[in-house]
Amino acid sequence: MPLFKAPLDDLRFVLHDVLKVSEQDIPGYSDLDEELTSAILDEAGKLANDVFAPLNQVGDREGCKLENGIVITPTGFKEAYQKFCENGWSALDLPEEYGGQNIPTVVTLATNELFVSANQALCMYTGLTHGAWMAIHSHASEELKETYLHKMTTGEWSGTMNLTEPHCGTDLGLMRTKAVPSNDGSYKLSGSKIFISSGDHELAENIIHLVLAKIQGAPEGIKGVSLFIVPKYLVNKDGTLGARNGVSVGSLEHKMGIHGNATCVLNYDDAEGYLVGEPNKGMQAMFTMMNEARIGTGMQGYCIAASAYANAVEYAKDRLQGRDVKSVNNTEGPADPIIVHPDIRRTLMDQKSYIEGARLFSLWLATLVDKSERAKDEQAADMLALLTPVIKAFVTDKGYEAATNAQQVLGGHGYIEEWGMSQFVRDVRISQIYEGANGVQALDLVGRKLGAKGGKPVMAFGMMIKEFIDSISSDGSLSYSVGKPLLAALGDFQTGCTYLMQNGAQDPHAALSGSTDFLHLMGHLCFGYVLGMSAKASHEKLGESDMNEEFYCQKINTVQHYLHRQLPMTRMHLKRIQAGPDTVMSPSVESF
Amino acid sequence: MPLFKAPLDDLRFVLHDVLKVSEQDIPGYSDLDEELTSAILDEAGKLANDVFAPLNQVGDREGCKLENGIVITPTGFKEAYQKFCENGWSALDLPEEYGGQNIPTVVTLATNELFVSANQALCMYTGLTHGAWMAIHSHASEELKETYLHKMTTGEWSGTMNLTEPHCGTDLGLMRTKAVPSNDGSYKLSGSKIFISSGDHELAENIIHLVLAKIQGAPEGIKGVSLFIVPKYLVNKDGTLGARNGVSVGSLEHKMGIHGNATCVLNYDDAEGYLVGEPNKGMQAMFTMMNEARIGTGMQGYCIAASAYANAVEYAKDRLQGRDVKSVNNTEGPADPIIVHPDIRRTLMDQKSYIEGARLFSLWLATLVDKSERAKDEQAADMLALLTPVIKAFVTDKGYEAATNAQQVLGGHGYIEEWGMSQFVRDVRISQIYEGANGVQALDLVGRKLGAKGGKPVMAFGMMIKEFIDSISSDGSLSYSVGKPLLAALGDFQTGCTYLMQNGAQDPHAALSGSTDFLHLMGHLCFGYVLGMSAKASHEKLGESDMNEEFYCQKINTVQHYLHRQLPMTRMHLKRIQAGPDTVMSPSVESF
Repeated sequence: MPLFKAPLDDLRFVLHDVLKVSEQDIPGYSDLDEELTSAILDEAGKLANDVFAPLNQVGDREGCKLENGIVITPTGFKEAYQKFCENGWSALDLPEEYGGQNIPTVVTLATNELFVSANQALCMYTGLTHGAWMAIHSHASEELKETYLHKMTTGEWSGTMNLTEPHCGTDLGLMRTKAVPSNDGSYKLSGSKIFISSGDHELAENIIHLVLAKIQGAPEGIKGVSLFIVPKYLVNKDGTLGARNGVSVGSLEHKMGIHGNATCVLNYDDAEGYLVGEPNKGMQAMFTMMNEARIGTGMQGYCIAASAYANAVEYAKDRLQGRDVKSVNNTEGPADPIIVHPDIRRTLMDQKSYIEGARLFSLWLATLVDKSERAKDEQAADMLALLTPVIKAFVTDKGYEAATNAQQVLGGHGYIEEWGMSQFVRDVRISQIYEGANGVQALDLVGRKLGAKGGKPVMAFGMMIKEFIDSISSDGSLSYSVGKPLLAALGDFQTGCTYLMQNGAQDPHAALSGSTDFLHLMGHLCFGYVLGMSAKASHEKLGESDMNEEFYCQKINTVQHYLHRQLPMTRMHLKRIQAGPDTVMSPSVESF
Repeated sequence: MPLFKAPLDDLRFVLHDVLKVSEQDIPGYSDLDEELTSAILDEAGKLANDVFAPLNQVGDREGCKLENGIVITPTGFKEAYQKFCENGWSALDLPEEYGGQNIPTVVTLATNELFVSANQALCMYTGLTHGAWMAIHSHASEELKETYLHKMTTGEWSGTMNLTEPHCGTDLGLMRTKAVPSNDGSYKLSGSKIFISSGDHELAENIIHLVLAKIQGAPEGIKGVSLFIVPKYLVNKDGTLGARNGVSVGSLEHKMGIHGNATCVLNYDDAEGYLVGEPNKGMQAMFTMMNEARIGTGMQGYCIAASAYANAVEYAKDRLQGRDVKSVNNTEGPADPIIVHPDIRRTLMDQKSYIEGARLFSLWLATLVDKSERAKDEQAADMLALLTPVIKAFVTDKGYEAATNAQQVLGGHGYIEEWGMSQFVRDVRISQIYEGANGVQALDLVGRKLGAKGGKPVMAFGMMIKEFIDSISSDGSLSYSVGKPLLAALGDFQTGCTYLMQNGAQDPHAALSGSTDFLHLMGHLCFGYVLGMSAKASHEKLGESDMNEEFYCQKINTVQHYLHRQLPMTRMHLKRIQAGPDTVMSPSVESF
């Protein structure tokens, strides 16, 4: 069975040394001392290690089954889900008025890393509930909130999001699912939804589906889409469960990975539903859920890569093949462990620097979530909106690459299912696809987010990085080793922005032919920035007495590795952006 | 079922317009006019389309089964294998004295693309036979050749290669399989081999295992390894099959992909074997097989990517989502096909330019095989040896990337097994791992091939590209659009070589920390070179009357796409090489 390793020291480093959470002026953050966060993360690590991780391969092997209309999840999933909920993890960051513990997002997402690293498919049952909770909380009537949120907080009821139909995913304006008003203010929904993660199961007593549909007579296209709550079981006035609603599982998909999660075709047949928010404003309400889901999905990219990396390291320390080209290390053994070989170390450092960058980036973004929601900081909200497509697409593209490279370390053993590396690659692959395929994220970034609010957020982003570079300019060593490469990357970013602005207005194809490259350019710059913060923090710590010198030196080494070997990719992406649309747009459809 | 499309026009273009095979001064090439090659490729395309492709998903779904010690291959594989052999494809390039057709390698590998694109797992049963054939032919005694080669030519008997053991793959010096001499000149082999592709099956009447083992008392390490023929069934003096030999299937591996191929643990228990070549010179003999297998494996990278691409294109033409940002194309429909969107076109062009580059590179290398073997051209043999690790690793790394990107075009449908895109990704993944993992290829290139023969082959390689650039210098358009970017890439290559020479001698870790980047730098340069040849050939054709103008213009567009958007990666790889070994080698083992 693959190993699971909770990176508690790294999480502590990010929360306290780099982000200095307890010093930040955000409501709830002053409580976040190391004692509290360590207690939370320790407990999460134990549950992840003892309960979630051992079920990861079980879920992959067994998958979900549909028997007589009922979905059976893999052995042990129900008990693990119940333990997760009983121990309060489903309620960690939710408001106290609904039974939550009101812990800030930054700590909640740190615990989330542990659970997802241990078992992505299992986490999807709880993760979607959280997103549905937020959408209902933000947009639904008090009555609906009162009816649904308490039991969703405890995880007794779970949630889903229903967008995709067989003929439409990205373009939801083509949707066919219909909602017909009833006399009592409710609606009757009919239609078919596909790719519904956690769409049915017996882990929770009830499932609260959030469903996009068109009310009879609604405007054409995306402007006629509304959001509904459709519970699997109708809820009686007293809160008890009533009759089964008109929603059933048509089939389960056979997927490349995340076998432990039930991906359902859901058929709605005059199912009773309740409007969430205004009619025809469904996309706006669903975006509350989608934006949160995109951050969570982005994190999946590095969470799975982190598990794959830990296993690659273990193998590289253990497997004896060949000798160090410079000297024999393992004189007792017939050969040296492969971790002596430069190319193995190179790929491990590539993976490690990506994972550390992604963890920093994710938890830094989590502080923006908290700033935006707890401190109502509009600038933080704008920055978060700008960077949401970047975390979703960049972190998952690079996570797939890192997981693949970790698998490669094991050679043939990596290709055999027994070792679990194939599952990491197959599982993480979905994160590039769902919650808006990564190409759609690039379109969102270049087509929508860059120009939002007259470009203020993107200018603020550039300025923030410039200010960081300035802040280390007085430290000669940091300025040379971090400031200089970061400034070069920032220059590439600004040149890229200028290209998109100058050419995109006249010819949108010119901008969009470079959209994925621009997103990756920006992703590298974000990683350079947060890794720069990490180097700065490590430098500070190294000046203190009584600290773990080796730990902070290695942090700086990892930053250097990224800045020299990954960050220069900004130039390559810039060149591709500047290559323009000609070779992309000129070929006839038939010539492909 | 996924679509299969035989790219016959592209193969004709490469063979006749670019490589101009029938004009080349290589024995057997003067026969290769378009009539002959078209007849061969048409027939291969039909068999691939009608028989191989329909079994691809069948093989993935059913996999192989081990029942009572007997391996059962998927439904239809046996009939397809027999058809392949009966139609003479197994004997295409083999010498006439053993019943072959003596067709040059360049055409044989062109047919190979069609079969592999249609069904990689099935092709592995025939491909390994070919490699074993070559090793026996090059190194075994006349008696052994007489006994085994005729039936292997017809495919009545198949072949395997047995190197890996549970504790050793790359480092074969650690091998434990023992060979004890018998009185009659044969040996008794005992030991266990793993990851044996096509290790057992009922497709052929007999299986000729080529097995590495150590003769009792042989020197330690790799210098004590010998090569043996171990037939599944012993062969009587009259050529009929005798008793079952002492080799049995321990188990079948459960793999990420290529489920249709039986990957076996083979247990040898006093199995009768016959020495091939000299004692203790087994690696040398096996390298005949491995070098051929590495070219074949490299090709798998683009063959599978080509099938994935064809399906992505089909989907992109068919799937309606969103509108072209500039104008409505499909006024009748509710939305435009996604092939109008710049990012979809960008990724398709990335895939297409890689596939066309890989096809050119592979078939150009095939002419080096023919030059080396048929014309005994030593320089061609040296160049081939230099570029073998490049085709193996670069083409498969990029093939995996391209197949993944093709899968991405289908969004959620790409992740569902039904559409076949997941299988392409899972299947092609093995090509980066087997026949020497890609990191080992980089080690071979930098640690062995660069310095071979005092660096003559690598200097010849650089000179060849320089001569090509010079050859187009009088054509202003070609010189600007092709020569200039190629010269920049050549400069990066030379700077990289210089770095490795200057630093590698003092500190081998400095060279090897950049080995994978150097291999990729060189891969891009190779693709730039062959694509440059393709642009030059297309320019020439455009000057002729009565040609398909659209076809050649598109070829040039594809070259331009690669030169602008992929070739500049040479600079990034150079930067990574120049980043040196510090961040890679300095971390302690514990810090990973």
